[in-house]
Amino acid sequence: MTAGPGPGDAAGRPRPEERGPLAGVRVLDLTRILAGPFATAKLADMGATVWKVERPDGGDDTRAWGPPFHAGVSTYFLAVNRGKRSLALDLKRGDAVLERLVRAADVVVENFRPGTLEKLGWTWARLQAVNPRAVLCSISGYGQVGRDRDRPSYDVIAQGEQGPQDLTGDPDGPPTKFGLSIADLTAGQLAVEGILLALLRRERTGRGDRVDVALADGLLALLTYQAQMWLSCGQAPRRLGNAHPSIVPYQAFRARDGWLNVGVGNEALWATFCRALGRPDWATRPGWATNRERVERREEVVAAVAEVLAGEDVAAWLERLGAAGVPAGPIRGVPEALTLAREDARGMVTDVPHEGLGDVPMVGNPVKLESLGLDPAYGPAPRLGEHTDEVLAAAGLAPDEVAALRAAGVVA
Amino acid sequence: MTAGPGPGDAAGRPRPEERGPLAGVRVLDLTRILAGPFATAKLADMGATVWKVERPDGGDDTRAWGPPFHAGVSTYFLAVNRGKRSLALDLKRGDAVLERLVRAADVVVENFRPGTLEKLGWTWARLQAVNPRAVLCSISGYGQVGRDRDRPSYDVIAQGEQGPQDLTGDPDGPPTKFGLSIADLTAGQLAVEGILLALLRRERTGRGDRVDVALADGLLALLTYQAQMWLSCGQAPRRLGNAHPSIVPYQAFRARDGWLNVGVGNEALWATFCRALGRPDWATRPGWATNRERVERREEVVAAVAEVLAGEDVAAWLERLGAAGVPAGPIRGVPEALTLAREDARGMVTDVPHEGLGDVPMVGNPVKLESLGLDPAYGPAPRLGEHTDEVLAAAGLAPDEVAALRAAGVVA
Repeated sequence: MTAGPGPGDAAGRPRPEERGPLAGVRVLDLTRILAGPFATAKLADMGATVWKVERPDGGDDTRAWGPPFHAGVSTYFLAVNRGKRSLALDLKRGDAVLERLVRAADVVVENFRPGTLEKLGWTWARLQAVNPRAVLCSISGYGQVGRDRDRPSYDVIAQGEQGPQDLTGDPDGPPTKFGLSIADLTAGQLAVEGILLALLRRERTGRGDRVDVALADGLLALLTYQAQMWLSCGQAPRRLGNAHPSIVPYQAFRARDGWLNVGVGNEALWATFCRALGRPDWATRPGWATNRERVERREEVVAAVAEVLAGEDVAAWLERLGAAGVPAGPIRGVPEALTLAREDARGMVTDVPHEGLGDVPMVGNPVKLESLGLDPAYGPAPRLGEHTDEVLAAAGLAPDEVAALRAAGVVA
Repeated sequence: MTAGPGPGDAAGRPRPEERGPLAGVRVLDLTRILAGPFATAKLADMGATVWKVERPDGGDDTRAWGPPFHAGVSTYFLAVNRGKRSLALDLKRGDAVLERLVRAADVVVENFRPGTLEKLGWTWARLQAVNPRAVLCSISGYGQVGRDRDRPSYDVIAQGEQGPQDLTGDPDGPPTKFGLSIADLTAGQLAVEGILLALLRRERTGRGDRVDVALADGLLALLTYQAQMWLSCGQAPRRLGNAHPSIVPYQAFRARDGWLNVGVGNEALWATFCRALGRPDWATRPGWATNRERVERREEVVAAVAEVLAGEDVAAWLERLGAAGVPAGPIRGVPEALTLAREDARGMVTDVPHEGLGDVPMVGNPVKLESLGLDPAYGPAPRLGEHTDEVLAAAGLAPDEVAALRAAGVVA
C-alpha cells in the first residue's frame, strides 16, 4: 500500500480523521456496553467524528468492568471505544442539548431497549423533523418491530435461541456457546453496514433513513447453508465438534504435543495428504478414494489419520503439510495469535498512544483500504467527559450556555 | 416501517434493484464458495446489480455441493447467491471480455489466492488504468500483504490459528470449533463494509480504492475485550464452556426436559432471579449478594442454581423468568429457530420465487432499512450462464461479438 497526502502522526502514519473514508461524518453515539460501541469504534477507525454521550455519573457501564484494568482504565472499555470524543450528558435533563446534537449529526446510533429513545422524547418522526438528513441506527435484541420487541436479551440468550449454540460442541456432549460474543459483535458489524448503506442512499436522495438491527436477526443470517438445508429439504444441521459435515478429513487432530487443524478439501489434496502422512497407499485404497466415500466411512478414516498424526509434534506436521500445500494450522491461544500478528506487517496489533497510559497495544481495524494504509494512527479511548466542551462547541453552543449547563449538572 | 414508491413484486413488496440503497451499483463478482458470495449476496439484497462470473464447466464449485439439493439445485449454492446475474466466462481466455466488464463496473470482488488475479493479467495498476472509479475488493486467508500471504487457508484453519477455537468449549475438554463458518462469514461482512466505505469515499474523491480483507484479520478483530485483557495486562482469556468469565450466573443450565440460558447481568436482576427460583433468601445470603462474590464462589452458586432449575421444565422456567424480567431463553435447534422466525413480522424467513423451483424459503437480510422495508422482494439464485447475454449487452458488447465468443467457447 502506498502513502498518500496528509500530515499524519509523529511517525507519519495517516490519521483516519484526515484521510479516512468517513472524514467529516459526525456520529452521535448513545450506545454503551459492546454491540453499539464496537460499531461506532469501527466508524471512528474510518475517520468519523464520534460523539460518545455518557452518563455523568460513571459513564458507559464498561468503564467499571474489571479487573483487568490498564493503569486504572477498564480493558473492556479500551477495546471498543478508541478514537471517540466523550461528552458527559444527563439524557433525562438534556433534551435541548440533545436536539442541538441531533441537528449537527449525520448519524445517530443507540442500543437502548426498544421504546427507551421514544420515552426520552425522540421518536423517529421528531428526529426526521429536526434533521431530515440524519440516519438513525438502533441495535436491540429482537428489533424495533416484531413479536419479541420488548424482551430483554444478551449475547448468550441470542446464541441459544437462534441455533448457533445447538450447532457447537461435541455431538455427544451439550450445546456449547461460542467463546466470542458473536451475537453482539455481528450486530455491531451489521449496524455499520446499515449506516454506510443509508449514507450512500443519502448521497442520491438527500434524506436520512432508519436502520433496525437485531442480535437475533444477525445470527439467523449467519446460518446460511445450514439454514438452507433445512428450509429447502427439511434436513436439520447438527453439531459435529471439530469436524465438517461434508468433508473428511477437515477437522482438529491431536499431535504428540498439541492440536492442529487439517483441511483436505478435494481429491488432489487427499493424495498429497496421504503422501505427507507416509501412507501413499491410502490415496487409492478402495472405499477411501473419494470424499463421498470418506464421509460415509468417517470414523474409520478419521481414526486412521489420527493415529498417524499422534506420532509426531505439531511443528513437524505443519512443516511437512505446509511444504506439500495441504491446508493445515495450529490451534493457538489468544496470546500466541496476537504475538504473531504483532510481528506481521498488517497492522493487526498496533500501538495507540493514550495520555497518561502511554502506548496501548490494540487490535487494528481489519478493513484494509489502500487509501488509509494498513496501520493508520487510531485515536485514543476518551476519559469520561474529556470532550464535553469541544463537542458542544461543534454543535453550536456558546461557552456561557455550556457553563450554565455544567452548573446545573446537565453536562459534566 | 412504511412503504415508499416503486412498483415492487406481485405482492407489492419493494424490489431492491428499484428501491435499495445500492440500486444502480454494478458489481463484477469473481468470487466462489462462501466468503465472497456471501458478501455479494448482501450487495444484491441491497439493490446492486451483481454479475457473477462462473466457469463455463460447472460454475461455482458449490453448485455441485450436496446433498442436500433443492429440486436438483445445491442448497449451499442457493443460500449465498440469490439476486445475482450469472455469466459463464472462461477467465483464462476471456481477457478482452473481462476488460469490458471492468470498464462497466463500480466494484470488482474476488477471493482467489493472492497473486491469481495478477496472473490473469489484472494488477491493481491495470485495473485503475482501465477504470479509475472502480473499487477492488480482495478476500483471502491472510491478506494481499504480509508474512502468510501465500498460505492456503480454510475457515477451520483460521478459527484455530487466531484464537476462537481455543476459547470455545468446556475448560476441561478440547478446543472446539464454532459450529458456523465464522471466519468466512465475518470476512464476507468486512468485505461489504470495505466496499461501502470505498464507495462513500468515491463520492468525495471520484476515485476507486483497493480493499484487502483477510479471514485471519477478521477473527482477530472479533477478540475485542478478550484481546485487550492480554494486550494490556498479560492475562490470557480462556475457554469457559457455557459460562461467562465475569458474570455469575450467566450461562446454560439443564432444566427437567432440556436446556435454557440465563443471564443475571446485575444485582437487581439477581434479587429478582432468586425470588423467581423460590429462594428469595439467596439475594442477601452472605457471600452471594454481589456479582464479584458470586464470581469468586462460582462453583457453589452455579451448583445451587442448577439444582433448582433441574426441577422443572424449560417452558415453565421461561414463563416465570420472563414474567419477572430476567433475561432467559431456550436453546433451540435451527429448525425451531427458523420456524419461529417465519411466524414473526421481521421477514427473517421469506419466500423467494425461483423459476422451476417455485417459492424457495430463505433467510432474509438482517439489515433492516426503513426505505426498503422488512421484507423486500429478493431475486432468485441464477442458473449457470442464465444472464450471459444480458450482462455482456450491459457491458456494451454487440450481439455478434457475443455470438463469436460463444462459438469460441469463451462464454456460455
